[in-house]
Amino acid sequence: MPPTLPIQADRLWQRLETLASFTRPDIPWTRRAFSREFERAREWLRSQFEQAGLTVWTDAAGNLTGRREGTQPGLAPLVTGSHCDTVVGGGRFDGILGVLAGLEAAQSFHEGGVLLRHPLEVIDFLSEEPSDYGISCVGSRAFAGTLDAAMLASRNEAGEGLAEAMQRIGARPDGLAAAARGPGGIAAFVELHIEQGPVLEREGLPIGVVTDIVGIRRVAFTVTGQPDHAGTTPMDIRRDALVGAARLIDTVHREASAMDGHPHYVVATIGRISMSPNVPNAVPGRVDMVLEVRSNAQAVLDDFPERVMALCRDDFGQLRVGLSAAPLTQTPPTQCDDIVMRAVAQAADRLGLPHRALPSGAGHDAMHVAAAGPMGMIFIPCLDGRSHCQEEWASKEQVAAGVRVLAETLRVLDAR
Amino acid sequence: MPPTLPIQADRLWQRLETLASFTRPDIPWTRRAFSREFERAREWLRSQFEQAGLTVWTDAAGNLTGRREGTQPGLAPLVTGSHCDTVVGGGRFDGILGVLAGLEAAQSFHEGGVLLRHPLEVIDFLSEEPSDYGISCVGSRAFAGTLDAAMLASRNEAGEGLAEAMQRIGARPDGLAAAARGPGGIAAFVELHIEQGPVLEREGLPIGVVTDIVGIRRVAFTVTGQPDHAGTTPMDIRRDALVGAARLIDTVHREASAMDGHPHYVVATIGRISMSPNVPNAVPGRVDMVLEVRSNAQAVLDDFPERVMALCRDDFGQLRVGLSAAPLTQTPPTQCDDIVMRAVAQAADRLGLPHRALPSGAGHDAMHVAAAGPMGMIFIPCLDGRSHCQEEWASKEQVAAGVRVLAETLRVLDAR
Repeated sequence: MPPTLPIQADRLWQRLETLASFTRPDIPWTRRAFSREFERAREWLRSQFEQAGLTVWTDAAGNLTGRREGTQPGLAPLVTGSHCDTVVGGGRFDGILGVLAGLEAAQSFHEGGVLLRHPLEVIDFLSEEPSDYGISCVGSRAFAGTLDAAMLASRNEAGEGLAEAMQRIGARPDGLAAAARGPGGIAAFVELHIEQGPVLEREGLPIGVVTDIVGIRRVAFTVTGQPDHAGTTPMDIRRDALVGAARLIDTVHREASAMDGHPHYVVATIGRISMSPNVPNAVPGRVDMVLEVRSNAQAVLDDFPERVMALCRDDFGQLRVGLSAAPLTQTPPTQCDDIVMRAVAQAADRLGLPHRALPSGAGHDAMHVAAAGPMGMIFIPCLDGRSHCQEEWASKEQVAAGVRVLAETLRVLDAR
Repeated sequence: MPPTLPIQADRLWQRLETLASFTRPDIPWTRRAFSREFERAREWLRSQFEQAGLTVWTDAAGNLTGRREGTQPGLAPLVTGSHCDTVVGGGRFDGILGVLAGLEAAQSFHEGGVLLRHPLEVIDFLSEEPSDYGISCVGSRAFAGTLDAAMLASRNEAGEGLAEAMQRIGARPDGLAAAARGPGGIAAFVELHIEQGPVLEREGLPIGVVTDIVGIRRVAFTVTGQPDHAGTTPMDIRRDALVGAARLIDTVHREASAMDGHPHYVVATIGRISMSPNVPNAVPGRVDMVLEVRSNAQAVLDDFPERVMALCRDDFGQLRVGLSAAPLTQTPPTQCDDIVMRAVAQAADRLGLPHRALPSGAGHDAMHVAAAGPMGMIFIPCLDGRSHCQEEWASKEQVAAGVRVLAETLRVLDAR
């Protein structure tokens, strides 16, 4: 096995620029799934897949798939890829890097005459970002067989159903069951992605070996006080819901800060707040907030909201305000497979690229694909750890290191 | 001078019920200035003023005025009154109690053959509550000669100017200058009002002698952090604007609580908050808040926002979030006149009604009328200290005590 592959980093960079340019002109860089920009990007992507010698089709789930056969009949495919849709105002790397790096790896195998035992599939999964239909990871859920009828029936603001939208871009929602890959349906899946956080950049490391995709628990907190006249109600008899909320916000921040890294990954955020009456001359009567806690440990998710509430109990009693919690959503953590993690680390070592293990704080298609076989992810640094914004950036060198590790990882996995 | 007057408390109570019934049917008890309900209420009020033997007119400022002449020519009038407009969803006592109690006092003088040296004017001031045109105390400002051209030019959401609206209800905005009462234009002003706070009720006192109307300072605070991905940004490098805001909210509450009553009246409130991005999965990047501080001491108003900012400086440094402040509005405290305060206390003593001195935490027409002569206010308790809400309530007995003290106070002031 040669130590390096004929990766054309310039070609990959050029394709990143081209694919990013399929954007809403008024809000760069926006390419919402099912939009006109998205359809045009897919047409272009199909032509690039074909250029790389791949057999291309859109599966029943609407995943654009490029396949190269392997040398050994009957093996399940190695799969790589990501997604080409973006959030509104999202960046030029999130998602498309994983698709185009997979394409570049496949093309380098093709051009370099590298034969793999397994078939190789490069997939642009449909609509990874929360779509206008309220569902995220549409394609990867369907790939794993978990896109259900209720999800298919969800509608966008214009009243179009998700199933209709899928048909519009060439999917066949009626044929989902037959197209789903069950457990063992793939040999392995590996996805290259920008970190979307600051850890690799801060430590000057080119490669992250993802250990887990964090679970997410969201809880709606309501603080209830009494909406009194702000001029005439003395301080000592107020029941100010916002003062209660402030204690809760502070406790969430302090607790998550104390817990993070001991030993689990823990981040907790009050990202949404609304208040009533919300006028300058009224004591706040009610504050609604959403707590989001993410961790790679299910025990942390199970415990955190209740722990914070318990820590606030005395304060809330003294302030004579009430606190209630209602569950919103809960997604368990997904562990990456040892096989893939070891392959990534081995590939990086071969290429002389320093790396570290770290969890992913964001959700990814890989989370769902894990149901079909061993899953892992490769991270590269991104500027200031920013993503989902216009400033989202990774350098050509960082991208090149990522695609080289991805291609090498596929070869390591193929040789197992 | 007889110890009591022939006050008809039942008649007053009946009139309170009738006047309150001029309300928007969909949002009781709402009678916005310039609305159809307001105009109908005014028609009815005019008939009641006439029943009481008053000469009635709407002055250039739109204040409905009923006048009874005095026995001694050339004296400036004693004035009493309040307003009949309400906030949206406001109550059945705020404002109308002062107008109808003034009317009942005048009618009791009329029916009891009580002659006063001074003329007596009962005034329903136009639009005391913040109007749809953005201006509060329209009539009492004009009465004092401080309703300026900029205020007259302010418009409601439909685009109607305040001057037009005033004309619509019978005012003559062009004649404001001539109608304004300059300094010395009145012998004294006394206004009866519900306390809108809980002090009298808590202490079981029927009468409050108002010492000051608090000044109000409003400041816009902006906390600036960085809007990062809530899943991928570790706790230790976040710059969470809401965590900064929580420290500020807490400090405002603690400081005002510690200062109140030592020796000044101090209340401070963060009553309004907005945040961006305000989505569950983003670290808050920016929080805007309005601080309102009210006190009867100008020094407190001058110092409070800056004191709070100074107390938060270290915390904000550690959190690496910014804090800036912009002035919004500032109204100085208004002291009630000793002459009127003494008259109220003397009247209450004569009637055997216990009383205490207390400041008003809310603004009133009296604040503006003070420019024309000695001003004071009488408070009665209200249920749970609530006002500006459907639950606003005072009992028949509490109302009766208030009107008796008002009438007696006018007699004391007349005898000076």
